Amino acid sequence: MPREITGFSNPLVKQVRGLRDKKNRRAEGLFLAEGLRILTEALDAGIPPKMLWHAPEGGAHPLVQKLARETEATGGEVFVTSTDILSKLSGKDNPGAVIGVYPEMLTPLTALDRATSGIWLVAERLRDPGNLGTILRTGDAVGAGGLILIDDCTDPFSVEAVRASMGAIFTQKVATARWPEFVSWLRSAPGQLVGTSLNTDNDYQDPRYEAPTFLLIGNESQGLPEVYEKECDLLVKMPMMGKADSLNAAMATAVMAYEVLNQRRQR
Amino acid sequence: MPREITGFSNPLVKQVRGLRDKKNRRAEGLFLAEGLRILTEALDAGIPPKMLWHAPEGGAHPLVQKLARETEATGGEVFVTSTDILSKLSGKDNPGAVIGVYPEMLTPLTALDRATSGIWLVAERLRDPGNLGTILRTGDAVGAGGLILIDDCTDPFSVEAVRASMGAIFTQKVATARWPEFVSWLRSAPGQLVGTSLNTDNDYQDPRYEAPTFLLIGNESQGLPEVYEKECDLLVKMPMMGKADSLNAAMATAVMAYEVLNQRRQR
Repeated sequence: MPREITGFSNPLVKQVRGLRDKKNRRAEGLFLAEGLRILTEALDAGIPPKMLWHAPEGGAHPLVQKLARETEATGGEVFVTSTDILSKLSGKDNPGAVIGVYPEMLTPLTALDRATSGIWLVAERLRDPGNLGTILRTGDAVGAGGLILIDDCTDPFSVEAVRASMGAIFTQKVATARWPEFVSWLRSAPGQLVGTSLNTDNDYQDPRYEAPTFLLIGNESQGLPEVYEKECDLLVKMPMMGKADSLNAAMATAVMAYEVLNQRRQR
Repeated sequence: MPREITGFSNPLVKQVRGLRDKKNRRAEGLFLAEGLRILTEALDAGIPPKMLWHAPEGGAHPLVQKLARETEATGGEVFVTSTDILSKLSGKDNPGAVIGVYPEMLTPLTALDRATSGIWLVAERLRDPGNLGTILRTGDAVGAGGLILIDDCTDPFSVEAVRASMGAIFTQKVATARWPEFVSWLRSAPGQLVGTSLNTDNDYQDPRYEAPTFLLIGNESQGLPEVYEKECDLLVKMPMMGKADSLNAAMATAVMAYEVLNQRRQR
C-alpha cells in the first residue's frame, strides 16, 4: 500500500530532494527521474523505481497504477504526497505528476560487450548536462550500444541529463573511464575509433565506417586534445557552410551517428 | 572613451540587467549577448553592440579593444565595470568577460528573399531556448537562409537562446509568423515544405529535395499538428532503432538539414 507523506520536514522528503546534488547521489547510489513518459520508458526497459512518488490525483492514471504495482512487486515503496511537495522534490513548478528514485547503473568498461552493437558513443570532458542527455537519446535512436564518458564529464545522473535523455539513461549502457584505460580496453579487440576534427580534409561521408565504430566526441568549447586525435583511426570533418566553424557537440554526434547508421541499414 | 560604472544602483546596470526579461527586451527592442566569441562573431557579421560592457582587465585584450573601437565608431557606448557587476548583468558567476547590448533584429516574413538559400528552417511552437539557439547554429552550419518561427515559440533573443546559437543569432535571419500568414507567403512562390513525422513510411533519404526546401520542425513534445502535416508537400521519417520513438527536435533538424545539404554539395 502507498504511504502518505504530508510534511515538508519528513526525512524522506529531505533525502529525495537531496538527490538533486551530485554529492548525495554518489553517497547513496541513487538518482531522480521525473515525468510519466520517462518512468514508463524505464519500466519498459525492465527497471521499476526504488521509490515512486505521486500526487493523490495521479493515482487514477492507469500508467501510474502500473508503475505503483511494479514498484511494490519488486520491493520498492510508493509514496503519495501533495503537489507542493512534489514541486519541492523536483525543483520545478510542474514536476510532471510522478517522480522515481532509481539506483545509479554504471557499467564497468570491461563489462561492455562491443559485439552487441555496431555503434558506440564516446564523449570526452562533456560539460553540459543537456548535451549529455541528448547524446544518450541519439544513441538510443541509432541503436548504439552505449556511451563511454572519458575523463571528467558532467554527471549522467543529474536531473537535467536524465530529463534530456528522455528515458535513454535507462536503455543505453553508460561507462566511465580515464583516457589510458579506455585506449587499452579499445585496443584489446577490433574497433574503429573515429573523431571529428577541423584538422583534416577527410569528408565524413567518404569513408566506409567499420563496425564496431566508436564515435569520439570532444569537449564543447575545446574539441579533442591533439594526443586524442592522434589515437583515432580516422579523423573526419563535416561540411560547414556558415560563418561559425562549429556545430554543437550533440548535433555533430547526431549527424555522424546517422551517417554510420545510414551506411549499414536496409531501405 | 569608456565610461566607468562602479555602483550596482546605477540606472544603466538596472536597465541592462532588465534585458534578461522578455517584457523589457520587447519594450526596449534590445537584447543581451555574452562572451568574446559571440560578440566577435557579431562584429564579423558587421554588427557592433549599442553598449559594450567589460571589466578593467578585459580592456587589455586585442579583440575587446577592437570591439570597443567599433562600438564607439558606430555611435555606441563602452562601459568599464567590476566583475561583480558583470556577473549581476549576466546572471552567471563567470559572465565571459564581455557583454554586449544589441537591437533586436527580426526580419519581416515578406522581406525574406528565398532565392538566397536552398534551405530554410521553420519551427512551430518551439519551447526550449536551448533548442532554438542550437537550431540557429545548425542553420548557420548548413548555410540556411534563416529561421521562421511559427505561432508561439520561445523568444529567440533570450540569454539562453542567444548563448546556444553561438553567434548564429547574428548571421541567420529570423522571422516570426502565424501559420496562415506563413502558408500564404510560402505558396506565393516556389518552395517545398518538408515535415518529419511518424505518420509516414517515407524514408528521409529517399526523396530528392527541391530547392528552396523549407524544413518544418514541430513542437518538442507534441510534434506537428495534423493540419500542418497535411499542408506539407512531403512527410518523411528518420529511422529509429531504439526503444524511444523520437529524436530531440534540434537533433532531428540537424540530421535532416545535413541530408538536404549532402544531396546538393560537391565532394
